[in-house]
Amino acid sequence: MLSLNRIKFIRSLLAKKTRSDEKLFIVEGVKLVEELLLSSYKIHSIYAIQAWVEANQQLLIKLNINYAVITPNELERIAQLTTPNQVLALVHQPETVLNLNTLQGKMVLGLDNVADPGNLGTIIRIADWFGIDTIVCSPNTVEHYNTKVVQASMGSFFRVNVFYTALGQFIAEYKEQTTHPVYAAALGGKNVYNTDTKAPCLLVMGSESHGISKELEGLATGIVTIPAFEGSKAESLNVAVSTAIICGEIRRKG
Amino acid sequence: MLSLNRIKFIRSLLAKKTRSDEKLFIVEGVKLVEELLLSSYKIHSIYAIQAWVEANQQLLIKLNINYAVITPNELERIAQLTTPNQVLALVHQPETVLNLNTLQGKMVLGLDNVADPGNLGTIIRIADWFGIDTIVCSPNTVEHYNTKVVQASMGSFFRVNVFYTALGQFIAEYKEQTTHPVYAAALGGKNVYNTDTKAPCLLVMGSESHGISKELEGLATGIVTIPAFEGSKAESLNVAVSTAIICGEIRRKG
Repeated sequence: MLSLNRIKFIRSLLAKKTRSDEKLFIVEGVKLVEELLLSSYKIHSIYAIQAWVEANQQLLIKLNINYAVITPNELERIAQLTTPNQVLALVHQPETVLNLNTLQGKMVLGLDNVADPGNLGTIIRIADWFGIDTIVCSPNTVEHYNTKVVQASMGSFFRVNVFYTALGQFIAEYKEQTTHPVYAAALGGKNVYNTDTKAPCLLVMGSESHGISKELEGLATGIVTIPAFEGSKAESLNVAVSTAIICGEIRRKG
Repeated sequence: MLSLNRIKFIRSLLAKKTRSDEKLFIVEGVKLVEELLLSSYKIHSIYAIQAWVEANQQLLIKLNINYAVITPNELERIAQLTTPNQVLALVHQPETVLNLNTLQGKMVLGLDNVADPGNLGTIIRIADWFGIDTIVCSPNTVEHYNTKVVQASMGSFFRVNVFYTALGQFIAEYKEQTTHPVYAAALGGKNVYNTDTKAPCLLVMGSESHGISKELEGLATGIVTIPAFEGSKAESLNVAVSTAIICGEIRRKG
């Protein structure tokens, strides 16, 4: 049985400010909570229907997790998922600090002003696929604890670290500390399919509508572009799609 | 002034059945309607706020378009867009017939069971970018006149033709008629980054959860796979993301 206060509290975590004040975020669905349980994230509490609790009883006890059995109706009142669901978890936001020393020898992703939560979630999934465990975002990029970001990441959320910081300063420090190349995706750059790129590196992607800022473009050591097919009238590609193509190309060339 | 009946009628077009019965679909937003006006699609009617009508008065008269000036409040009642909006159009569904003869020498995309409208819209945009003007979908793929598909396509909708038919039969006929290769994306195929592929061709993509059906896999002349980075624990890529990577690789190799 879920008290009205508890329902209100969980729903209040849909707001960024409350998430930030409470240092919590929401994870929903059987698949994602399964990945959560395998991760190093610290769980605050779990709200699940009887069937899920029965199936996971031993793990809940072993991990000493605070949980409540609720009805499907109660779950609907706290959940965002519209597909049939069994479980929702509140998770502590970990205290993480971006340490440049740990980026030596790695491929890293930088995001400038990516506003859509679905895109950020998809990009986290792409990063995970291409062996990138660190994403550094400009402060105006959507918050990664946004429920839609978490859901769209399909579990990759728990394997990729996302940081928010002034991107220009970060790039300058990254170049100095690692001496790895910094690629930025922008119009008028070199054809990414033909250009020699190499990892480890930092790849900076901007928003679809505005691209990356001039300041960041100036800091890059190389600008890359995905060429459209001759005669195409399409104006741009989705930022997650572009990120995937360029990450794939960089990994292909090693 | 919009009558209640008219509001009801427009809102009824959010259902696939009504769209299909009325042979109409909805296009929203300044950018998309601008592309619509440049396309060969036949417009049924336009509902716009005063400012939009004033800016487009000459074109509306020249193209003899049936339009109504409505208030921002009225627009909100008929619109799906949550961002500030100025215009909504009802558009006739064209009568199109898939003709295999027109596919000779072209790169074509096949989609098996792609359920998410955002993914289909993004794939239409990707097709447009990579010079593909024909997409052939299995009957269980989401309907392309779905408002979310149209919006996600970002105007590419008007430059790419989407058909629905039994995909197995289509592939068999395509192979016979064109002698072009048929690639299917599936696990355990050849590394798409290293394999020689060539266009013109047909590329068949399946759903993320189920991949393509065994029947379709058997009809392909080559199976391609996007390799994950060594050690990655990510299970899959989004189907639009995979489509973009493979289309890019095929175009790169010509």
